[in-house]
Amino acid sequence: MTWQMLMEMTVKGFLAELASKSPAPGGGSVSALAGSLAAALVAMVARLTGTEGDNEGMRGIQGQAGDLMEKLNRHVDEDTAAFSLVMQAYRLPKQTEAEKEQRAAAIQEALKGAANHPLMVAEECLQVLVLCMEVVAIGNPNALSDAGVASLMAYSGITGAMFNVAINLEGIKDPVFAQQAKAERDRIMSEASHLYAGIQTLVQKKLIYMVEW
Amino acid sequence: MTWQMLMEMTVKGFLAELASKSPAPGGGSVSALAGSLAAALVAMVARLTGTEGDNEGMRGIQGQAGDLMEKLNRHVDEDTAAFSLVMQAYRLPKQTEAEKEQRAAAIQEALKGAANHPLMVAEECLQVLVLCMEVVAIGNPNALSDAGVASLMAYSGITGAMFNVAINLEGIKDPVFAQQAKAERDRIMSEASHLYAGIQTLVQKKLIYMVEW
Repeated sequence: MTWQMLMEMTVKGFLAELASKSPAPGGGSVSALAGSLAAALVAMVARLTGTEGDNEGMRGIQGQAGDLMEKLNRHVDEDTAAFSLVMQAYRLPKQTEAEKEQRAAAIQEALKGAANHPLMVAEECLQVLVLCMEVVAIGNPNALSDAGVASLMAYSGITGAMFNVAINLEGIKDPVFAQQAKAERDRIMSEASHLYAGIQTLVQKKLIYMVEW
Repeated sequence: MTWQMLMEMTVKGFLAELASKSPAPGGGSVSALAGSLAAALVAMVARLTGTEGDNEGMRGIQGQAGDLMEKLNRHVDEDTAAFSLVMQAYRLPKQTEAEKEQRAAAIQEALKGAANHPLMVAEECLQVLVLCMEVVAIGNPNALSDAGVASLMAYSGITGAMFNVAINLEGIKDPVFAQQAKAERDRIMSEASHLYAGIQTLVQKKLIYMVEW
């Protein structure tokens, strides 16, 4: 039962576990964590921008960012759990024909879970990226670099999740599932790339204005 | 004394602290953490590629990644400490002329520290990115997505650190310092952009080959 274990480790301990020879946790959990870090930074910038009565928008962003952070926090552990199911399925016995069939089915089922999971992470990171645009555009200018870093983390979370979708799809034999996953990937990446480019342009413009950098 | 405090928090606690109204920790510490996560993933991929006698290269990468992870771990806390010194300097008394002068000098000194610090983080993340290219190119293919995620994190660490250099330079009045910081930024960003583009092309090519994605 890995549930919540990673999130309860110290940051230092998590990094040591990540660096260890065990393939889990790996890039999937790090992608979810990148999204969590982005959501946390968005929430901070929204708070620093003021959430009093005159600033309903920022209060809304703070709440949404907090919710997305909670969801992504859970995914840090769930991604590792989904990957562990794949490894378990590969370890099932394969002596008899019946065992071989059961094992193959279990592997397919586990791989689908491991491919679906990062698609959810990517979708949530995309929602964080939407909030990043708002805090970059109208957030406290003193926290512009924080909003900018949030956008880098959210976009890395999306791209990283897609690497994990791809590598899990490698073993999936169901063409309908693969097609649907690909369509979902294309939709998310298309939205994310547009948004990310817009955010980076705006951050650069604002930084140049501030520091003639 | 914030030294080592952030790294000793639980991952969950770190995120909650990040999301809080306090401006520190912020994007600077997250950029260093992104570099640490990248270094940890590189170390894992090197370990999964095998570090027996026949694979001296991977053993070297594992060692270098471990060292860079340690350095970047320290920067997670040090960046927040550098930022706190800036805030402390702004809070110095400014009643008399002497106090005003002392305060202005302390602010300049603290801002230089806060601008120099992310330049070190960016340089270390660049060294991690160099290792990412190696593990993407010749690492265990089953861990390709992990190596890919490492490259996203390392590059985000570099870019994020540069946002922090820029925002701290805003208040720095020493043109020589600003010029040197800008030259250092340009050198690191130029190397990083080339390397990053090469890595992404290679990851995409390998993923397409693996999954016809």
